[in-house]
Amino acid sequence: MKVLVDLSVVPLGVGVSVSAYVAACERVLQEAGLETALHAYGTNIEGEWDEVFAAVKRCHEVVHAMGAPRISTTMRLGTRTDRAQSLADKVKSVEDKLRPEGSAD
Amino acid sequence: MKVLVDLSVVPLGVGVSVSAYVAACERVLQEAGLETALHAYGTNIEGEWDEVFAAVKRCHEVVHAMGAPRISTTMRLGTRTDRAQSLADKVKSVEDKLRPEGSAD
Amino acid sequence: MKVLVDLSVVPLGVGVSVSAYVAACERVLQEAGLETALHAYGTNIEGEWDEVFAAVKRCHEVVHAMGAPRISTTMRLGTRTDRAQSLADKVKSVEDKLRPEGSAD
Amino acid sequence: MKVLVDLSVVPLGVGVSVSAYVAACERVLQEAGLETALHAYGTNIEGEWDEVFAAVKRCHEVVHAMGAPRISTTMRLGTRTDRAQSLADKVKSVEDKLRPEGSAD
Repeated sequence: MKVLVDLSVVPLGVGVSVSAYVAACERVLQEAGLETALHAYGTNIEGEWDEVFAAVKRCHEVVHAMGAPRISTTMRLGTRTDRAQSLADKVKSVEDKLRPEGSAD
Repeated sequence: MKVLVDLSVVPLGVGVSVSAYVAACERVLQEAGLETALHAYGTNIEGEWDEVFAAVKRCHEVVHAMGAPRISTTMRLGTRTDRAQSLADKVKSVEDKLRPEGSAD
Repeated sequence: MKVLVDLSVVPLGVGVSVSAYVAACERVLQEAGLETALHAYGTNIEGEWDEVFAAVKRCHEVVHAMGAPRISTTMRLGTRTDRAQSLADKVKSVEDKLRPEGSAD
Repeated sequence: MKVLVDLSVVPLGVGVSVSAYVAACERVLQEAGLETALHAYGTNIEGEWDEVFAAVKRCHEVVHAMGAPRISTTMRLGTRTDRAQSLADKVKSVEDKLRPEGSAD
């Protein structure tokens, strides 16, 4: 089962600067060979369910090992059986509808 | 690694009434032997990481098998290495602080 | 427009114990006269859109005033035009479907 | 008070294709003059608290007016008093830490 995920990992107990922890989690996702896209409030991830969730678990392990005693993560996750849809497809289907009517494409 | 999760499963493509699907997911969680607490906007779950996420995956499989072509789930998940904390502990630690100062208990 | 919200306020930069901040936010919601239900991973809120969001803003102001330099909040929010639905209705509609078939009620 | 938001609007009761509704919401945000960045699982928004939340409310009104009887939205929202931080700053602070050590920049 393929899954699209939007992941936001927030370490607690390490002050207000959390980007080093987020970057460590990004590296975990990349080392797992997952397709990812970083945005200002999280990371989009595309992959097989078991591989994606193994990487999310590894993120928590790595961020704890870096010294964060507590982690508060939020995820959105989508699965569908009607058709395959990539991260790029999702953005494109909205952007197509944002294009002004009467435009050449 | 123990995890506390707040899970909200939203099936798409099945109309506006989604409670039958949410109930099916509840049964999956209970059959997995996980401690859960239902609220108006999701379900709190307490358990070992691998068992919790296996149950969440099973929820998606069951809800798709019931006919939902698309599922949009949101999760909050917390892990901590400083101390054990149950679902009940979390509620109690807030409620203790809501009690008026000078109260007998 | 009525809205049902599930609110989770996470202060950063104040260590790992966040319950005092969550309790302060609870008091804000109660003083606003909103119907609320605390759970282990957030608070359900029911009310008119403008009143609910004014209270959420006030939560952020109060938690910052308590000394938290950064706040990371997550919300689920639902509106519907087909029928009125309270927090209690949402829980009941799932619980009804969890009851064993053939049960007396 | 400035706020960074990550917004995901999911209309229910309109089938599995929701991009037309998401696009309508994007237009509302742009007409409100807010800085936004679309990603595969939502939209980053940067602005003053009252303006951002007025636009989110308008999204719900517009999506209901298009025929969606029910909307399930999720938001992440961050405020901070220690320093100003834009959407671009947040991405850059993670990307800087992802750059290989010893790289020329």
